[in-house]
Amino acid sequence: MDTSLLENIKKEVSLPEQVASQISQLIIDQHLVSGDKMPSELELVSKLHVGRGTIREAIKLMVSRNILVVRRGLGTFIADRTGQTEDPLGFAFYPDQNQLSLDLQEVRVQFEPWVARAAAQRATEENMKELKARCLLVEEDIMAGRDHLQHDVDFHVCIAQCTQNMVVPNLIPIISYSVGLFGKLTRNALLSETIIGHRAVADAICRRDGATAERMMRQHLEQNRVELEKVLKTMQEKQTPPGEQILP
Amino acid sequence: MDTSLLENIKKEVSLPEQVASQISQLIIDQHLVSGDKMPSELELVSKLHVGRGTIREAIKLMVSRNILVVRRGLGTFIADRTGQTEDPLGFAFYPDQNQLSLDLQEVRVQFEPWVARAAAQRATEENMKELKARCLLVEEDIMAGRDHLQHDVDFHVCIAQCTQNMVVPNLIPIISYSVGLFGKLTRNALLSETIIGHRAVADAICRRDGATAERMMRQHLEQNRVELEKVLKTMQEKQTPPGEQILP
Repeated sequence: MDTSLLENIKKEVSLPEQVASQISQLIIDQHLVSGDKMPSELELVSKLHVGRGTIREAIKLMVSRNILVVRRGLGTFIADRTGQTEDPLGFAFYPDQNQLSLDLQEVRVQFEPWVARAAAQRATEENMKELKARCLLVEEDIMAGRDHLQHDVDFHVCIAQCTQNMVVPNLIPIISYSVGLFGKLTRNALLSETIIGHRAVADAICRRDGATAERMMRQHLEQNRVELEKVLKTMQEKQTPPGEQILP
Repeated sequence: MDTSLLENIKKEVSLPEQVASQISQLIIDQHLVSGDKMPSELELVSKLHVGRGTIREAIKLMVSRNILVVRRGLGTFIADRTGQTEDPLGFAFYPDQNQLSLDLQEVRVQFEPWVARAAAQRATEENMKELKARCLLVEEDIMAGRDHLQHDVDFHVCIAQCTQNMVVPNLIPIISYSVGLFGKLTRNALLSETIIGHRAVADAICRRDGATAERMMRQHLEQNRVELEKVLKTMQEKQTPPGEQILP
């Protein structure tokens, strides 16, 4: 298929798409935030001068993009994490999931040590309390032999929240996409390292030691990267056919 | 509105949503990539055992998430940049666009110097040729008094492509979200700095001088940050009401 041909055909924007853009603008102009109730269908009909069916189609599109949520019998509301979808960069569709996971790990090694340093410099008392709790949740999972994936990501997001930068906590789940794949590949070889590494980072942040927090985070993520590379190299040597890749 | 109540009500997943997930899995399993043609509606009907209307609804959802594109008379195809939407983190819905733009600039200052260094170490001859061309396009825009926003982002994405890391080129457009707002706020005060800064980065990459590429990128982005902070501080002193913020 000649994709350049496809690119040259201008994207048609349907009426519901156009109306969805107008409703988005309305949300922004009226400073509506997560949990706020939307105007009714009829109000939107009279405001935007389109039929009720079109409004419904537009709302469906906006629900699929996590801008709105419909609660049956209650109405339509602004979604939590407005406009953030679960896999915003379409990683699930990357053909080489193993290389993706290496590339993501490289980004984490470069980016997150700074996040840990900034966290140590800017964390509030409240942040520190939550960080300690999050650290414990991962340890409890590991000690109990449970999957610690979600709590692991939450721990790293919590560190990002300590920076007070509003973008960073939203970037962490994206670059942590491969954490699940990682665990499967390495068969969680680094469980005790995870406990020790996380504690070292959390402790350094809580005593406002930015340099140590940065170094410990780099070491934690580097060890993960080395382990991942080792496993993928072994798999390659066994010439695992691409169809048998372990997908997350 | 009590948002914790909303969070507690489990998200209802509609039938079209469920079918969209199944179609996504089918795309992944069959290794379909951008530009490939999808099976027909009827084939999907017989494969997934749901009605034609549900398949159509599911396809609409997948179009809205940029997984599929429908070309009238031609059929349904896998979209370019499969699954990547235009504003994947919902930045348009952040209430404080000025703080957002400062926070994004902080992320860029921390992350992109490393990108420039890795680019210098790994760029192919092909990459370098494109980088020089992209550098010129920005200069031409500026010299002609045109808006250089899109070409500026393209230049930074091109540097990211030089790293051969498949994730980085997709992160750059996200963290460059505020470039448009930045230009409006600073009234493009740094046009000549942009030309000089971009050239210095591109030259260093093309002679594989990673240390200089890194330093020049940091300097370029830091100058932008300082200018942005200056403008926002002046605005704050004039106590611009939030409603009159210049939105991108």
